[in-house]
Amino acid sequence: MSHLIQVPLQKNKYPVVVGHKILSELPRRLKQAKLGCDAVIITNPSIRRKCAGKLTPVLKRAGYSVNFLIVPDSEQSKSLNQLGRLLNRLAQLDGIGRSLFLIAFGGGVVGDVTGLAASLYLRGIPYVQVPTTLLGQVDSAIGGKTAVDLPHGKNLVGSFYQPKLVFSDLIWIRQLPKRQRVSGMAEIIKYGVIRDPRLFGYLEKHRSRLLKADPKTLSYVIARSSRIKGEVVAADERETKGIRTILNFGHTIGHGIEAATHYSGRYTHGESVAMGMVAATNIAVQLGICSSSVEKRLVGLTQKFGLPVRARGVSAQKVLRAIRHDKKAKRGRLRWVLPTRIGHVVVTPDVPETVVKQAIQACVAGK
Amino acid sequence: MSHLIQVPLQKNKYPVVVGHKILSELPRRLKQAKLGCDAVIITNPSIRRKCAGKLTPVLKRAGYSVNFLIVPDSEQSKSLNQLGRLLNRLAQLDGIGRSLFLIAFGGGVVGDVTGLAASLYLRGIPYVQVPTTLLGQVDSAIGGKTAVDLPHGKNLVGSFYQPKLVFSDLIWIRQLPKRQRVSGMAEIIKYGVIRDPRLFGYLEKHRSRLLKADPKTLSYVIARSSRIKGEVVAADERETKGIRTILNFGHTIGHGIEAATHYSGRYTHGESVAMGMVAATNIAVQLGICSSSVEKRLVGLTQKFGLPVRARGVSAQKVLRAIRHDKKAKRGRLRWVLPTRIGHVVVTPDVPETVVKQAIQACVAGK
Repeated sequence: MSHLIQVPLQKNKYPVVVGHKILSELPRRLKQAKLGCDAVIITNPSIRRKCAGKLTPVLKRAGYSVNFLIVPDSEQSKSLNQLGRLLNRLAQLDGIGRSLFLIAFGGGVVGDVTGLAASLYLRGIPYVQVPTTLLGQVDSAIGGKTAVDLPHGKNLVGSFYQPKLVFSDLIWIRQLPKRQRVSGMAEIIKYGVIRDPRLFGYLEKHRSRLLKADPKTLSYVIARSSRIKGEVVAADERETKGIRTILNFGHTIGHGIEAATHYSGRYTHGESVAMGMVAATNIAVQLGICSSSVEKRLVGLTQKFGLPVRARGVSAQKVLRAIRHDKKAKRGRLRWVLPTRIGHVVVTPDVPETVVKQAIQACVAGK
Repeated sequence: MSHLIQVPLQKNKYPVVVGHKILSELPRRLKQAKLGCDAVIITNPSIRRKCAGKLTPVLKRAGYSVNFLIVPDSEQSKSLNQLGRLLNRLAQLDGIGRSLFLIAFGGGVVGDVTGLAASLYLRGIPYVQVPTTLLGQVDSAIGGKTAVDLPHGKNLVGSFYQPKLVFSDLIWIRQLPKRQRVSGMAEIIKYGVIRDPRLFGYLEKHRSRLLKADPKTLSYVIARSSRIKGEVVAADERETKGIRTILNFGHTIGHGIEAATHYSGRYTHGESVAMGMVAATNIAVQLGICSSSVEKRLVGLTQKFGLPVRARGVSAQKVLRAIRHDKKAKRGRLRWVLPTRIGHVVVTPDVPETVVKQAIQACVAGK
């Protein structure tokens, strides 16, 4: 059984399919998406080794030709060099009578660079997201933001280019190390805070099933998160209206923590976002736009999932400096996303620096 | 006095301004386009040397900051390497309080790579086309096709990304060597054949004024051509409906001739298109869908402008091979654009090879 969600874009709406052991459904979904016959799977070496054995036969049996292009398993893959390599390889694979489409088979890195390559090759060929991480399934695979990094900063080069299908099978997720899986939960908690008090309540209630990766429970929260992401994206596809900004809840200070630890992996992206959400909520409480009971509920849920709420031993000064740098990189367009209650956030550029400092200090030092 | 044409896209319509010595109008047009304050002019060394002295002061007086990024003056600039260089330089120029926009100041090469850089940097910043060639003004600057080449073929990487403004001042054109100016006339003749019998008649009548680059006459035909290009683009922005294909009239055999001469510059793009139009019309006559009087009129007009109608000493075999290669590169999607009368063309994939051969032989050998 699978959940079917539509990303309700005016043009080019596309389905997100979520379920456990649903690979046999993939060929039918690809056909509905009216893709060509020549699948080029872009993935990393570890996914290729661990997961390709399940995906390839399903495609071949359905009559697709299958080629693999491998990118290294790290943020390093999000470079203009890797992008150029992929584009040249696509030109080599292409030819008369061929109708290539790409499959991004992996996490956010693979998804971002695959989407960009798809958007550029021949001014756009179709692609499909088959995310293998929880973060990919609930966040990065949906919404068509593609990117690579420059030495000057992350995601400075990219496009808005929607996939034709997002296909989220839980089999990949259930193989993940627990820490990675739990990290993905941070983004799911985020959807509860920004848009969905019922989802938040569901997470509070079914925490132990989720930690055990119970397929039915996990499918539900992934599908619910996908729907919210899809709705927000459809309301502001190119991030011009300020609506899509709410998806950044927890990401300002979260990025600050990642940068202050030099992206060492000491905290995962999800863990950093978890701390960032707590800190942003603390800001909202300080500003008097949110009750402290909301902060308590968020801290409680975050801790229940084993996610950190404080970055011990991280310098508040470094976090603050990283946020200022972020602001510069975004040309002053830093926007704080602050909750007013569970299920609702506001976006504001103006938070006094003393308030930010206090929230960060609370976040890094513990209270 | 200037002509003002709108490219009538549903979203993001934009103006094309055509006139002689109209630079003083540029700041007002930029303001109307709601661009930022920081202009980054992308150009080549020869335009920088010969023309920047006129453009820069106009911008600076109007309060714009002006930076130049230089790309080499050849098709070599349309590479992923040059694109990467531009993107990195943009990131260096960017910063807090800055609002960059790009100005493509040059011919088709500069326009194509600038448009692509604009579409990718920060997932899209605005850009403006200030074409300095006749070909740029009537064709490549309008329509939002951006591209770079790969070793495997031309324009294999790109995007559809519309400029905010096309600003076509005749002062640049009138400085061009006559051969380059005349080459641009081939594309203007093309618009007459595919869409506008009145324009075709106008060209027949005012040939000598056009050859002398009379501002009023030249402005009129550039404006008229820009309008046709804009209308065709608006009807089929992403080239998905087959309408935009008619712009390729003369380009199939034209490209074949360019490729058969190894893009040696022996024939310019415009000259090759001129011969390609004559050959395509010959095909239409052979197929019985077009009267031979049309072919005669086209040959007559082409010759009047001093454009070649036959590629002497070029191997028909090589041209044919290049066309087959093109067909392969386009994955079988080669479409012949054939006139039925002056002002109307049809598009068809099916032309017997014997007919194509005969047209090419007539084209390379003379009759």
